[in-house]
Amino acid sequence: MIAAAHRPGRETEFPAFGDSEYEARLLRAQRAMRAHRMDALLLTSPANFRYFTGFDSQFWESPTRPWFLIVPAAGRCVAVIPEIGEPVLSGGWIEDLRTWPAPQPADDGISLLANALVPVTGRHRRIGMEMGRESSLRMPLVDFFELRDQLRHIDLVDGSPCIWELRNIKSPAEIAHIRTSCRVVGDAFAALPERARAGQTERDICTGLAIDILGRGAHSVPFLGCGSGPGGYSQAIASPCGRKLVDGDVLVIDVGATTHGYFSDFDRNYGVGRVADEALRAHELVWLATEAGIAAAVPGARASELHEAMMKVLQPAAGRGNNVGRMGHGLGLQLTEPPSNKAGDTSVLLPGMVITIEPSMAYGNGKVMVHEENVVITESGPQLLTRRAPREMPILG
Amino acid sequence: MIAAAHRPGRETEFPAFGDSEYEARLLRAQRAMRAHRMDALLLTSPANFRYFTGFDSQFWESPTRPWFLIVPAAGRCVAVIPEIGEPVLSGGWIEDLRTWPAPQPADDGISLLANALVPVTGRHRRIGMEMGRESSLRMPLVDFFELRDQLRHIDLVDGSPCIWELRNIKSPAEIAHIRTSCRVVGDAFAALPERARAGQTERDICTGLAIDILGRGAHSVPFLGCGSGPGGYSQAIASPCGRKLVDGDVLVIDVGATTHGYFSDFDRNYGVGRVADEALRAHELVWLATEAGIAAAVPGARASELHEAMMKVLQPAAGRGNNVGRMGHGLGLQLTEPPSNKAGDTSVLLPGMVITIEPSMAYGNGKVMVHEENVVITESGPQLLTRRAPREMPILG
Repeated sequence: MIAAAHRPGRETEFPAFGDSEYEARLLRAQRAMRAHRMDALLLTSPANFRYFTGFDSQFWESPTRPWFLIVPAAGRCVAVIPEIGEPVLSGGWIEDLRTWPAPQPADDGISLLANALVPVTGRHRRIGMEMGRESSLRMPLVDFFELRDQLRHIDLVDGSPCIWELRNIKSPAEIAHIRTSCRVVGDAFAALPERARAGQTERDICTGLAIDILGRGAHSVPFLGCGSGPGGYSQAIASPCGRKLVDGDVLVIDVGATTHGYFSDFDRNYGVGRVADEALRAHELVWLATEAGIAAAVPGARASELHEAMMKVLQPAAGRGNNVGRMGHGLGLQLTEPPSNKAGDTSVLLPGMVITIEPSMAYGNGKVMVHEENVVITESGPQLLTRRAPREMPILG
Repeated sequence: MIAAAHRPGRETEFPAFGDSEYEARLLRAQRAMRAHRMDALLLTSPANFRYFTGFDSQFWESPTRPWFLIVPAAGRCVAVIPEIGEPVLSGGWIEDLRTWPAPQPADDGISLLANALVPVTGRHRRIGMEMGRESSLRMPLVDFFELRDQLRHIDLVDGSPCIWELRNIKSPAEIAHIRTSCRVVGDAFAALPERARAGQTERDICTGLAIDILGRGAHSVPFLGCGSGPGGYSQAIASPCGRKLVDGDVLVIDVGATTHGYFSDFDRNYGVGRVADEALRAHELVWLATEAGIAAAVPGARASELHEAMMKVLQPAAGRGNNVGRMGHGLGLQLTEPPSNKAGDTSVLLPGMVITIEPSMAYGNGKVMVHEENVVITESGPQLLTRRAPREMPILG
């Protein structure tokens, strides 16, 4: 079960990354673990598993089998996985694969996992798991309790801060993939007015957009949120529905598409026919707030300061806040990652972080206007990854 | 925050279900909870949330905010959700919405949730959560521990058996959506040979297929697994990669597509040019095993007996088993659901259950052949939901 070769993933034409990328991630993780006094990270969730192994699969949709990855503070990773995964991961970056014939409800990998964890446990007797903010454990909780019982002398602790510390700083190769996702979705948004019309449903328009995005080279479109209504929409997170667009509507579409697993995440607003002035004004105001948010995204700034910069533009005219709870967030292998651009989030922006600038404003009778762009923080300031939305709301015919 | 109307979801043209569907689910859940001696179910994961609320969104891709649904043993459901969700759920099936301004790391809904749980807790002092087989909790584990501390007099127990008992039996309306997903994907598979050719990559072909599936009316394609290789493939769960198809290859594509959230899940095999005899023979043998599996899917049969029926066909010729670990499973709001067609799974098939018949066989040098069809169990026997795969492997030009 030990694979000889050293190739991340099965990609023979356009590999997502070379081996050196995974080497660098492991070394950074091991440095971080020493600072957090942990002997290993034990990972179960798709994005963390992919981050260290390159495993590219949507098989996570099946909740039947847990998968485990041990990232030790010294030495190489150990994957403890269902047999079905062995041919995919073998020949890849992870050399030490241990498998069991899952599903096997009576012991779905837990004793195998416990045995693999004992030798990597060193002086700290602490293993970090996905327990904290913006994390969840992808394994049955009863199995977690069983694992804890079998490892009575080891503390299973919250490894989330350590994990996010690593993943927050993107390498140039990661940024390149996010940039590709942004370009593809931007091109599709720009082409949307050629196709979308009053009389079509939200679903018609969004399906057409998803098809266009895939046709332009994105690998998947895991998130597509849509809202529409006369003079504005009240939300932008629901799946597109059967509502037909009519004259006077505002339509918002928010897309998270991936290339090699890396997300873009931004939205665009469109009017239909004659749109109420207050919607047009809200669009321009939130556009200006976005400008302020982008300008504020310099290394050393805190996430809370980005929020402040955007609120300063919005407050005089609106000031009723929004229900989104923040004005942007990190992104990468997940649609949203820490930090949050909101009051109280003191995270410091560092070169290599990729974030969304996402101001929103309540107006009219229960309406909200949301804009979103993606930027990477560089030594010399913010660099826009998305093609900037137009200042005036584009109108569909 | 109490919504007046009584409409599940925002769908104005083609609602997924009428109110009576949700009423029936709640009543069945309440009956099951009494049998399991639980005062409520506390749900956090997308499929369970959607099952009881109709909430149709891919916003689950964002790990930032937890969402909670309380299904009490008596009375109506209570949703404890981030503010951002309020405009989506209000006016829907759930009348009692309680919101907090998430994200709020110091207390992300936990005290609000604890307060909502106390009054629904009755004589059992037991609340069922997604703790067991084929389940995981979509909330930070540290928040689960905090909740447990705040509810010291209540037992948080494994509710998974109760949840699966409910979801396993599909209503006619649910089956209709699965049937639509099966038809759409079947049509797209049938049309694939018109487009796919040697020289194209796995990704080219699969992107074309996903686009075709969306164009034919599926709402999303969350799972697309692909494998290819000379004379056969070794796995069928990885995302399509940049490998170019050449003469002699066998290609498998396994698709999970949804309509109104309901999955189809089946694969198809294609040869490229002149394919090795052993692959053609394996295709026919696994096709025959599929016939046996379908025929065995009668009410009263056990999942293990379906496995036996398929193995009986495969064993004389192959008998080397497979690494899939089972030969089919339930499906519905998730790509895979219990039961598992495997030795030891004594689940009894009942009318309304939808399952996959998925035999597989190892052959040659590390190759595997996998077939899959979807059936619904009816009083009068198995009913095929997919258009049956051809007995002979179709060959791409």
